[in-house]
Amino acid sequence: MEVVILGTSSAAPTLRRWLSGTAILREGEVFLFDCGEGTQFRFMKADLPRRKFRHIFITHLHGDHIFGLAGFISTMNLGGRDIPLHIHGPKGIRRFVEFMTTFPRPTRLGFDLQVHEIEPGRTGLVVEAEEWVVTCAPLDHTIPALGYRFQEKDRPGRFDGGLADALGVPFGPERGKLQRGESITLPDGRVVSPEELIGPPRPGKSVCYVTDTGFAISARRLALDTDLLIHEATYGDDSLAMALDRKHSTIRHAATIAKGARAKKFVATHFSTRYDGPALAQLEIEGREVYPDLIMAYDLLRVEV
Amino acid sequence: MEVVILGTSSAAPTLRRWLSGTAILREGEVFLFDCGEGTQFRFMKADLPRRKFRHIFITHLHGDHIFGLAGFISTMNLGGRDIPLHIHGPKGIRRFVEFMTTFPRPTRLGFDLQVHEIEPGRTGLVVEAEEWVVTCAPLDHTIPALGYRFQEKDRPGRFDGGLADALGVPFGPERGKLQRGESITLPDGRVVSPEELIGPPRPGKSVCYVTDTGFAISARRLALDTDLLIHEATYGDDSLAMALDRKHSTIRHAATIAKGARAKKFVATHFSTRYDGPALAQLEIEGREVYPDLIMAYDLLRVEV
Repeated sequence: MEVVILGTSSAAPTLRRWLSGTAILREGEVFLFDCGEGTQFRFMKADLPRRKFRHIFITHLHGDHIFGLAGFISTMNLGGRDIPLHIHGPKGIRRFVEFMTTFPRPTRLGFDLQVHEIEPGRTGLVVEAEEWVVTCAPLDHTIPALGYRFQEKDRPGRFDGGLADALGVPFGPERGKLQRGESITLPDGRVVSPEELIGPPRPGKSVCYVTDTGFAISARRLALDTDLLIHEATYGDDSLAMALDRKHSTIRHAATIAKGARAKKFVATHFSTRYDGPALAQLEIEGREVYPDLIMAYDLLRVEV
Repeated sequence: MEVVILGTSSAAPTLRRWLSGTAILREGEVFLFDCGEGTQFRFMKADLPRRKFRHIFITHLHGDHIFGLAGFISTMNLGGRDIPLHIHGPKGIRRFVEFMTTFPRPTRLGFDLQVHEIEPGRTGLVVEAEEWVVTCAPLDHTIPALGYRFQEKDRPGRFDGGLADALGVPFGPERGKLQRGESITLPDGRVVSPEELIGPPRPGKSVCYVTDTGFAISARRLALDTDLLIHEATYGDDSLAMALDRKHSTIRHAATIAKGARAKKFVATHFSTRYDGPALAQLEIEGREVYPDLIMAYDLLRVEV
């Protein structure tokens, strides 16, 4: 998997930092988390494919996370999109999408646009496919907000074809049996068990996307042992009172969640426009005191998972 | 005056062309025409001042002309704006602005946001100030659309202080009288008339902004003798049928309006995404057959008026 952070500013854009939007690329498929104004431009700039882009997950209904939705939908429609698009988000997202696609007159969409509302406070499954599952957990913000976990499912271990050749396992139903976990008996009487030829199960990787929120223990649970946690870090220690008041995180809060969740990688993002230059460097210092290997997000940053 | 074309693409953005938005700068004041997604980014990029930015004029309610409004309002509010903002646009614009500033909860605005709706089909005054006036005329699009004319008022001729000195006109009430158009008599009996010292009236300059529309005679009337006509030119001759069907202009239509209106300068903009490279060069050729000195707009183009 690869993650592309499309925008990294909180609330208002700057010349270098656009608004919230993060893409996960996996097996040619794209998953978008949040869609602030300009996200469709960033999507183009990052050269992300639209052909296997089917799911958008919205964390909450503040404008800097949703004002790019309508333009993006319109552009895909004009581009001849004909595959379904699913928008998942907190209760209320349907009213927003409906307004934007019917004002001033209903847009004729050439594709199936499905909005899936998530009730406030819900923890658990959002959507599941053969190879991945997305779950959510409530965060702690001024309006209902959701953190998401994109989780690949575990895959069975690799079948060692070379070793099977060497042991003289013939091509055909015998190999199928082994791959399904059954032992076989070769013509010469030797018994071959699946453990000999199949490696350990390959655990799926995960990415967690947590914004906007104050320090929330639910975020730690959601992100437990994740491969990558992307967590908002709107403020530094200098603005702790403001963080508490506006239900945002300081970078120290975010790093504490990342550490507590044992996240293998941690990207801090969603910085207040006040942090630039030395102030941003100070933010980084505060975060590193808790999670030394943190990654400070910038627009169009790519992270391998 | 100076005009900055912020976005030049029709309907959907490309990597190089963003959506509709054009700014007029005059005496430190900024006037914005249309506000497609990303306009606030372009406004920043073009380094336009927000302190004397009080009026936005919306041509019509299609998304590519209005989806940037809410984010821009939000950013100015977060930035501490405290001077009024007036949004002028066709009937329906109020419902849009009200939805966007009350979803999911009413935004607490620190400034006075006034929406002024224009009835369909109206021709005439939109807003008037001491030194300028904005008028509108209905265009011919799939939904009600308005063209705008920003017109500086004529100013009286310059008073030639140097010549007044040479003629021996004393400082004081005599000069005031002359400037008000009255003759004076000097102590030595000579009579000085205002025509001797005051130059010809200085005509105000004008800029016309016409989009989206098919070939519309109302646009020619609106733009008569204007200093600069900015006119949509979505298509070329190759797509005449589409232009007629979708009520857009070909560049030949636009150039014909510019020529008929005797516009001193003509900027063609709002190009369909299909025109790039040689196709765009062909568009330019078609336009120049009618209006040889046309200017093909690109994003962030600046034009002196």
